Amino acid sequence: MPETSTFPSLKRLLVGKPIPSHLAHHERMSRVTGLAILSSDALSSVAYATDFIVATLIVAGIESLRYAIPISVVITTLLGIVAFSYRQTIHAYPTGGGAYRVAKENLGTMAGLVAAASLLVDYTLTVSVGISAGVLAITSAAPQLVAYRVEICLVFLALLSVGNLRGIRESGRIFAVPTYFFVVSIFVLIATGFYRYATGGIEPFVPAVPEERVPLTTLLLLTAFANGCTAMTGVEAVSDGVPAFKAPEAKNAAATLVTMAALAIAMFLGITFLAHAYLVIPTHAESGLSQLARAIFGNGTILYYLLQAATTLILILAANTAYADFPRLASIVSRDRFLPRQFMNQGDRLAFSNGILVLSSFAAVLIIAFRGDTQSLLPLYMIGVFVSFTLSQTGMVLHWRHSRKPGWQTSALINGFGAVVTGIVLVIVAVTKTLEGAWIVLLLIPLIVTVFKATRRHYDHVAAQLTLRGYEPQRRVHNTVLIPISGLQRAVVEALRYAETLSDDVRAVYVDVDPTATSGLQRDWKIWGGKVNLVVLESPFRSVMEPLLEYIEQVEGERPDDYVTVILPEFVPARWWQHLLHNQRALLIKGALLFRPNTVVTSVPFHLAR
Amino acid sequence: MPETSTFPSLKRLLVGKPIPSHLAHHERMSRVTGLAILSSDALSSVAYATDFIVATLIVAGIESLRYAIPISVVITTLLGIVAFSYRQTIHAYPTGGGAYRVAKENLGTMAGLVAAASLLVDYTLTVSVGISAGVLAITSAAPQLVAYRVEICLVFLALLSVGNLRGIRESGRIFAVPTYFFVVSIFVLIATGFYRYATGGIEPFVPAVPEERVPLTTLLLLTAFANGCTAMTGVEAVSDGVPAFKAPEAKNAAATLVTMAALAIAMFLGITFLAHAYLVIPTHAESGLSQLARAIFGNGTILYYLLQAATTLILILAANTAYADFPRLASIVSRDRFLPRQFMNQGDRLAFSNGILVLSSFAAVLIIAFRGDTQSLLPLYMIGVFVSFTLSQTGMVLHWRHSRKPGWQTSALINGFGAVVTGIVLVIVAVTKTLEGAWIVLLLIPLIVTVFKATRRHYDHVAAQLTLRGYEPQRRVHNTVLIPISGLQRAVVEALRYAETLSDDVRAVYVDVDPTATSGLQRDWKIWGGKVNLVVLESPFRSVMEPLLEYIEQVEGERPDDYVTVILPEFVPARWWQHLLHNQRALLIKGALLFRPNTVVTSVPFHLAR
Repeated sequence: MPETSTFPSLKRLLVGKPIPSHLAHHERMSRVTGLAILSSDALSSVAYATDFIVATLIVAGIESLRYAIPISVVITTLLGIVAFSYRQTIHAYPTGGGAYRVAKENLGTMAGLVAAASLLVDYTLTVSVGISAGVLAITSAAPQLVAYRVEICLVFLALLSVGNLRGIRESGRIFAVPTYFFVVSIFVLIATGFYRYATGGIEPFVPAVPEERVPLTTLLLLTAFANGCTAMTGVEAVSDGVPAFKAPEAKNAAATLVTMAALAIAMFLGITFLAHAYLVIPTHAESGLSQLARAIFGNGTILYYLLQAATTLILILAANTAYADFPRLASIVSRDRFLPRQFMNQGDRLAFSNGILVLSSFAAVLIIAFRGDTQSLLPLYMIGVFVSFTLSQTGMVLHWRHSRKPGWQTSALINGFGAVVTGIVLVIVAVTKTLEGAWIVLLLIPLIVTVFKATRRHYDHVAAQLTLRGYEPQRRVHNTVLIPISGLQRAVVEALRYAETLSDDVRAVYVDVDPTATSGLQRDWKIWGGKVNLVVLESPFRSVMEPLLEYIEQVEGERPDDYVTVILPEFVPARWWQHLLHNQRALLIKGALLFRPNTVVTSVPFHLAR
Repeated sequence: MPETSTFPSLKRLLVGKPIPSHLAHHERMSRVTGLAILSSDALSSVAYATDFIVATLIVAGIESLRYAIPISVVITTLLGIVAFSYRQTIHAYPTGGGAYRVAKENLGTMAGLVAAASLLVDYTLTVSVGISAGVLAITSAAPQLVAYRVEICLVFLALLSVGNLRGIRESGRIFAVPTYFFVVSIFVLIATGFYRYATGGIEPFVPAVPEERVPLTTLLLLTAFANGCTAMTGVEAVSDGVPAFKAPEAKNAAATLVTMAALAIAMFLGITFLAHAYLVIPTHAESGLSQLARAIFGNGTILYYLLQAATTLILILAANTAYADFPRLASIVSRDRFLPRQFMNQGDRLAFSNGILVLSSFAAVLIIAFRGDTQSLLPLYMIGVFVSFTLSQTGMVLHWRHSRKPGWQTSALINGFGAVVTGIVLVIVAVTKTLEGAWIVLLLIPLIVTVFKATRRHYDHVAAQLTLRGYEPQRRVHNTVLIPISGLQRAVVEALRYAETLSDDVRAVYVDVDPTATSGLQRDWKIWGGKVNLVVLESPFRSVMEPLLEYIEQVEGERPDDYVTVILPEFVPARWWQHLLHNQRALLIKGALLFRPNTVVTSVPFHLAR
């Protein structure tokens, strides 16, 4: 006997136990946990943001590196502004103010869809960039692994996928460890670095600078600035997650956001200053942070390896945040019918599984296409982030204007300033990065919006066709039941007996390709046929399918308003490979009948023991 | 409105018009056509057989090439013996004596299956080797195309696949052209070559011989001999095709076979002698035949290009013969239930299409894996050919012994001699070629035989389970009809009306995830429910699938001997991509119910206009 119900156990294995409704909100976050869970994306970006500035400037010669520090100061100022701006969002949307919702409610559906498309692209790149940067921390410490970079990236991607399909989100507290581990490691590095710098005990790298150099133009400085703005990614996460905090939610979230911004600013400035002091030049094989740690802690020391481990952990954790964000946003967009229903969360985790699988597939494509190289992925990353920043902040301005609460002007001013600042960064990013790959994202966002709108249009059409308003169902009285057969055996006889319970007009249809077999069948029919009539069809071309389909068409023609039920005996083999040996004709008939109105196809299973 | 019947037209486009029964035998072959169609495989092998001998011997130095001539003489002697041996088969099996049939009837099923497996491998390699050798003739004349060798091979493979799916076999006479074109070209080459050799007007190549040389061992001579035996491939084709000849079939076929053998021997000896006289050394980029033609006709002459064109044409034509042989053998083996029913020809060409697609897929794998290089494919080619030769000839010996016709001893002696000769070649090939890649085939043949036997065993088990002997069908009186619904709309109401015609016990099953929606549904049920009862299921985990499946299980438990019919309203969208937006739950339910006995799944289509 086959297992009585394979479905639930299979799903259980894949996606874990379902959560009962009354337990769904049992684990609210404190500030300490919230900071760890929601800020890994923002904090981890300090692991690579400095590198991107340095790698851009170095082509203009080693002296140009001194511009890294003023650029960083500008970026951290912007980071402070944006964080302050998002603090407003927290208080205005205590139930969670993602860019999609804020833009849609205040700027209209189209802006919301653009924000949603940008965010979905952004989350995909968060996964690719996080994993590739995390693997760079590994290959920096173990250069012999560089050749396997893509493979290691894909292993981490697979781990995240399976982990999230099984639901690692439940055990929130373990996520606190990597974040604090990273923060502490970075501050130890900065403190030691400054101490050694102040006491004169440093020996700057003598990096191999490329001979050919380009002039230091404004465009180059802007590019370095745009690249450094990766330090700002992830800053919106806290405002999306407000309802997950302990009461008072908004207050706790706001405090968490401020702490996060302060930590990010301090770490980013510290690392950039030291990178300049120690003259580290990141390569595709070793990150600047790794070089810095080698210089400060010494090559091969335990502290060095601890920092690399912490970096890998927080970057993978940052990638992991997208595994919560992507399916959640897809579910919200799907509820508004802009994405297929499969993404809509309806109690089961199944909808989230679809989101996880889609996210992992796209991230894998990016990792493979860009050979797991963080610097190559970067140009794609920023567009999505800053489109959603700008739309979200602009939406907030209109939100305040409509609310007319006391002091709304101040709030609107703060968000407006944020919108202008992020908008300017967006333009700079678009100008400096388009030719380097950002055009992919600039094409992708309108494409995704088109898919959103086509999906919604289709669902609207369907809803119109399904409405019961003014609907008068036809009275179907007569039901002709047809059973295509190629001979008599148990499965056929079972199907005949089943068919007899359905209608008084049951006909078995047989195609005559061999007169001897046909007369044998007609003889046996007296024993097994029961109330079922046998219809024998001629086949001048020895074809079986065509006469059958023509007959079905003819029967439908006789009674255009009634259903024709076609019953197909279907074998259910005991082993998977045996499927290849059966049901081919049934499949062909089903395929041919799929597009016919008023034709119902019924499969009567016959279970094979072996 | 969707098209009323898409199936026949689609199939027609793919596989061409069906052949009416009374026309099937309308085009019998004369000797002239028969020679052209059935001998392309055998005759085309002279285009590369000499190369394989020379390429093997050259590693022992340029003097060792003189052994090519005695080796060729031995091979042509064997070719004569094998041809004479197959002439016997023609007279004994005038309805077609393929190795599978001869081995199975005389040596038993196991020998037949080994022969069939060998032949299927052989046909696949005929395609790969024919195409890659044909493309070598092109790249010899146009060396700038060498880099695209694999791509050109795949284009020819695609042309052959599509051509055969559309049924190019019908226009038999055009196949006569390439064969005679090739034969005439080769004889012109040989005649001119001998004339210039005799008149002393030749200038031998001074080939770049490798510095390092190995000693000329017996093993090397045997390897050269084994490689040269490719000249014998395809000699069995005429005996397989006897019934396609005009009456008297056997006599015409025998005469054709003798002509073919004489032509092959003359061309092979002529080419080998000239190759030695002109000292041509084939490379992976240029064939020996091309070098010879350059030397004899002059580089860039019209005669040279004509010969290369003729060579490509006959080699592609030789590959094409496998497109008739593979599906035909698969169909015969499938009729004996050793291969899935999909390969069995039942009037439509559909079965042949399956054979064609399988053949093309495997040939493509070989071409890609071996980079379209004829010399690398060669070691795989010979095992299958000589296994089937040996089994077929051995089978003929037993055939004559059983027949006890007058003079059977002579016939048995001839076939026995053929069996011994081909058996010895088989051993030599196995010994010299195993390490070079023939091990793949030595593993593949038993693997295919295992698949044959597993398939047959399964079909036998199924037949036992399906027999009506002693079968007493249960009387199914009661039929419970369930319709899982997620709300009320037209598609659901149509399904309800359909369900009412099937049974008196129809229940719509609804999972309560939202109390407001549920009470709305219960209110509307009074209007639309009709005779159908509404069953509302609780869902503590907000899951929809699990309560549904549990309820179906419970209903089945109530009446273990009766069928439960589950009706699923199914959307049929107007465009293909819209499928992604619908029927996901229906698919999940179907998947979950597939393995349940006594559960019948019925799909009621609802056609969407757009």
